[in-house]
Amino acid sequence: MPESQLSIFLIQLLILLGMARTIGELFKRYGQPPVVGEILVGIILGPTILGRLSPSLYQNLFPPDPIQINMLNTLAWLGVLLLLLATGLEVDVSTAWRERGPALRIATIGVFFPLIVGFFFALSLPDHLLGRTDRIIFSLFLGTAIAISAIPIISRLLYDLNLLKTDLGLLILSAYAVNDLLGWIIFTVILGMATTGRFNPILILTILSATIVVAGLALTIGRRSIDRIISRLRLPGITLTFIFCLGLLMGALTQVIGIHAIFGFFLAGIMAGGARDLSERTRQVINQMVYAILVPIFFASIGLRVDFIKNFDPLLTFSITAIAILGKLFGAWLGAGGSDLSKEDRYALAIAHTPGGAMEVVIAVVALQFGLITHPIFVAIVFAAISSSLLVGPWFSWSIAQRKVINVLDFFLPRATIDDLKSGDRKGAIAEIAQAVGELERLPDSEAIFQAVWMREELMGTGLEKGVAVPHARIANLDRPVFTLARSTTGIDWDCRDGSPARIIFLLLTPKREEGAQVQILATLARIMSQKENQRRLIEAGDKEELIKVFTDILRSEGRMVRCAGS
Amino acid sequence: MPESQLSIFLIQLLILLGMARTIGELFKRYGQPPVVGEILVGIILGPTILGRLSPSLYQNLFPPDPIQINMLNTLAWLGVLLLLLATGLEVDVSTAWRERGPALRIATIGVFFPLIVGFFFALSLPDHLLGRTDRIIFSLFLGTAIAISAIPIISRLLYDLNLLKTDLGLLILSAYAVNDLLGWIIFTVILGMATTGRFNPILILTILSATIVVAGLALTIGRRSIDRIISRLRLPGITLTFIFCLGLLMGALTQVIGIHAIFGFFLAGIMAGGARDLSERTRQVINQMVYAILVPIFFASIGLRVDFIKNFDPLLTFSITAIAILGKLFGAWLGAGGSDLSKEDRYALAIAHTPGGAMEVVIAVVALQFGLITHPIFVAIVFAAISSSLLVGPWFSWSIAQRKVINVLDFFLPRATIDDLKSGDRKGAIAEIAQAVGELERLPDSEAIFQAVWMREELMGTGLEKGVAVPHARIANLDRPVFTLARSTTGIDWDCRDGSPARIIFLLLTPKREEGAQVQILATLARIMSQKENQRRLIEAGDKEELIKVFTDILRSEGRMVRCAGS
Repeated sequence: MPESQLSIFLIQLLILLGMARTIGELFKRYGQPPVVGEILVGIILGPTILGRLSPSLYQNLFPPDPIQINMLNTLAWLGVLLLLLATGLEVDVSTAWRERGPALRIATIGVFFPLIVGFFFALSLPDHLLGRTDRIIFSLFLGTAIAISAIPIISRLLYDLNLLKTDLGLLILSAYAVNDLLGWIIFTVILGMATTGRFNPILILTILSATIVVAGLALTIGRRSIDRIISRLRLPGITLTFIFCLGLLMGALTQVIGIHAIFGFFLAGIMAGGARDLSERTRQVINQMVYAILVPIFFASIGLRVDFIKNFDPLLTFSITAIAILGKLFGAWLGAGGSDLSKEDRYALAIAHTPGGAMEVVIAVVALQFGLITHPIFVAIVFAAISSSLLVGPWFSWSIAQRKVINVLDFFLPRATIDDLKSGDRKGAIAEIAQAVGELERLPDSEAIFQAVWMREELMGTGLEKGVAVPHARIANLDRPVFTLARSTTGIDWDCRDGSPARIIFLLLTPKREEGAQVQILATLARIMSQKENQRRLIEAGDKEELIKVFTDILRSEGRMVRCAGS
Repeated sequence: MPESQLSIFLIQLLILLGMARTIGELFKRYGQPPVVGEILVGIILGPTILGRLSPSLYQNLFPPDPIQINMLNTLAWLGVLLLLLATGLEVDVSTAWRERGPALRIATIGVFFPLIVGFFFALSLPDHLLGRTDRIIFSLFLGTAIAISAIPIISRLLYDLNLLKTDLGLLILSAYAVNDLLGWIIFTVILGMATTGRFNPILILTILSATIVVAGLALTIGRRSIDRIISRLRLPGITLTFIFCLGLLMGALTQVIGIHAIFGFFLAGIMAGGARDLSERTRQVINQMVYAILVPIFFASIGLRVDFIKNFDPLLTFSITAIAILGKLFGAWLGAGGSDLSKEDRYALAIAHTPGGAMEVVIAVVALQFGLITHPIFVAIVFAAISSSLLVGPWFSWSIAQRKVINVLDFFLPRATIDDLKSGDRKGAIAEIAQAVGELERLPDSEAIFQAVWMREELMGTGLEKGVAVPHARIANLDRPVFTLARSTTGIDWDCRDGSPARIIFLLLTPKREEGAQVQILATLARIMSQKENQRRLIEAGDKEELIKVFTDILRSEGRMVRCAGS
């Protein structure tokens, strides 16, 4: 490697990474997804802006020498492969599997509805917009590209709005896990077809079965074996190497049987992510390495490939953006039809499915590489991904803020308050609170309450951060939402992400048809408890009387702001 | 990037990384440096072994296509640059600066002695062994290559032998820090000369002054500014990006002014490593990323470049190995001449300087890239680096085990034992113990003891892991080594690496001329205390009488094994 190429490579990395991370963090600070800022940096440094303003500087910074281009490409590819690995680590297949009824329906209809709309739209496009590929393959691809959604954006949004632990949040994330898996399987099959260049039913069947067999084996036997192996690896450095090698192995394997390596890395991430003994620390090392260094380089390098002004077709871009957003919105809304979601929650869930985000961009980049799409289509898809990601935050918050104002204090059951839980574990504590609630008149019996709450708890723990837990359930025969407060002086291990034991526990029961009250009450309680001062007052309150008084005071001053925290 | 290249790249990475880490960890388990195992994997997979056994498999796995080679090269380069960054992070310039008297002398003579010997040896080599370069530049390079030593191997060895916190350990690590810095400056200057191809005094002066100015600015103003910036960065992900970008910046800067990027990354590491607010966690993320993934790929890829059998010249290899080991041994031994080290410690220090390890290999790889050396010289240097790294462990342990057997119990002062320290901080605790020791007859007064121990403590903390601390000092007018035991029931923050508070504290005083007794006593105490059972017994002992009795019992059964733990 000549010295001059090394110098240019280092300068390219410095500028791309430095700018992408700075702009990305600025976007994050203002509640926007960093990926949008990272893509913008590439557009600024690429042919679109810098290439126009100062062609010589642009040529010097990104010389069109194949070895030089290959160096940056190698790193960008590694970035996107590891992005899929890290995404897979967050996909919780077991929870999605336990929630499979509604999540599966939402994800399936949520993927296929926009796919079909996009497919027929693409069939009607003029010839010159097509790539070198067959029109049916192209149309299938365009449908898939607009059908896929972006987990990181929505999970961050749910976290910011204190909705991560609600039934709505759980359902959105479970549906998303299936959506991702389904979207990638379909995309993989289309890519396989594209390598032969023509639409061929037998080939489709072969690739589809290979994909399903690989995915099926990986998610069953594979996941269990990886779980066992990781539990035997003692040192964090070895676990890291192992996960990286697992990605390489699955990537090479999928690549060899005609599926893209990207899908292999995604599967490897899901396999490793399910391991019980994978420490939080190893996850952090992977996430920091991927999101602080490699992924920004990948997203910033996208803009270097394409001129976003020359290839901007306003009508095409507008149509694809509209179809992508509305297609996913209606798809998810239709899919949520049979569930017992309230009207408000069903609408919020549909909005949550609209952002295309990083995944849509990744798919477009791969498709461009394969010659599946032309530059104008690429620009339109990237634009759709960016604009839908920017839109979802305000839109989702607004939909929550539209709900009718309720006063959380109205649903508080002071008589069931427990100022010092006897039980030291989660199950016992829930039984104890259920006992206290069930003894009150006009409420279902304790056993029914305990069963419902514990079932929900097993699906996905309800521990928030900083020692607060919000166990909850929907109960038949309940006429209105009710909740109570319990305190544990010793603290109970509630499997909170920050490792803190739960000291303040709210148990919330809502009727089967609750018109979105659960989301409002839980978000309000989470928001109130995120203030240290309120937590301190509750923990320091003396006896039961004082505890109830302090809590009622807090609710009186803050519990009326039931519109969501983010609004 | 065509699909087939991506597949081959993934398979290359999988095989190189998987094998290198497996063999590397095996080496580590048997007390040998993993880098040796990693290099061996490359030799096995490269032209040397696989290329001979199955040329077609070798050709398929590592096809001679320039783009394909460049992909692996890009990652290997990133690996070596980040290896230097991570090495710089561990170089503690402040301690080395405070210890500058003896450390500077040992490092300077320790570098220049083997450099001069190597230089004259190289001058006598036959013409065909030279590269395309000038003989003087070649000879200077060979001298530098065999003068540099390997920090990771020796710091690991000191740790394994419980010697990290002795004066000997401190001196070795400080001298090494200067040795590395000096070696890299000299190497950088030679590389600069090599780019013009001829020996030119004016050019040397220019590059030398540029190198010294850059290094000087980086280690003074640069280090202070980085310290301030890192203390303002709140999120770990941002700190990681910042350190990576700092490496890129310094790498590009040094590259542009004609010094190699490798030196820039090394400087960046030293600058960031000195920041007080750089968290242990961020260090771990960098270390895991570098040592678990990138560095093994770099070392394993070395063997892919060169045929180690065809280019093996036994006489040349033997001579370079002998000169490298003996040159460094005598250089460090001469450098330690004026210090108050005992004969035994001086010999151990000299042995500790012999391994070439990773740094010697890195220098050889860069020199080969620049055409500074031929393949036979490269093979000889790599062989010297490997064999000296394998040799140092047994040799160093043996030199410690040769010392005359002493019984640690003979030096214990039971009357100065404190069973419950009143003080809650380090300084107070040392003063309290010094007070108790100073009151005994025939010992120097408390104030003198306190001053000496505290000065040593400020140089570099003496906290071991798991709640044990070993403050110590050399005292004039002392006729024999003495030590005492103090216990803190609440625990004292002793800045231990694992964050645990110190509960068991040994204060050791040795005469100015102590014939290596400090090393023996501290190593024995550290070894005894590394057993949980012994710690538990000391912490649970009731009053002072019982504490002394328990400790004396432990010493009686284990304190006689004063030969070092590793032997």
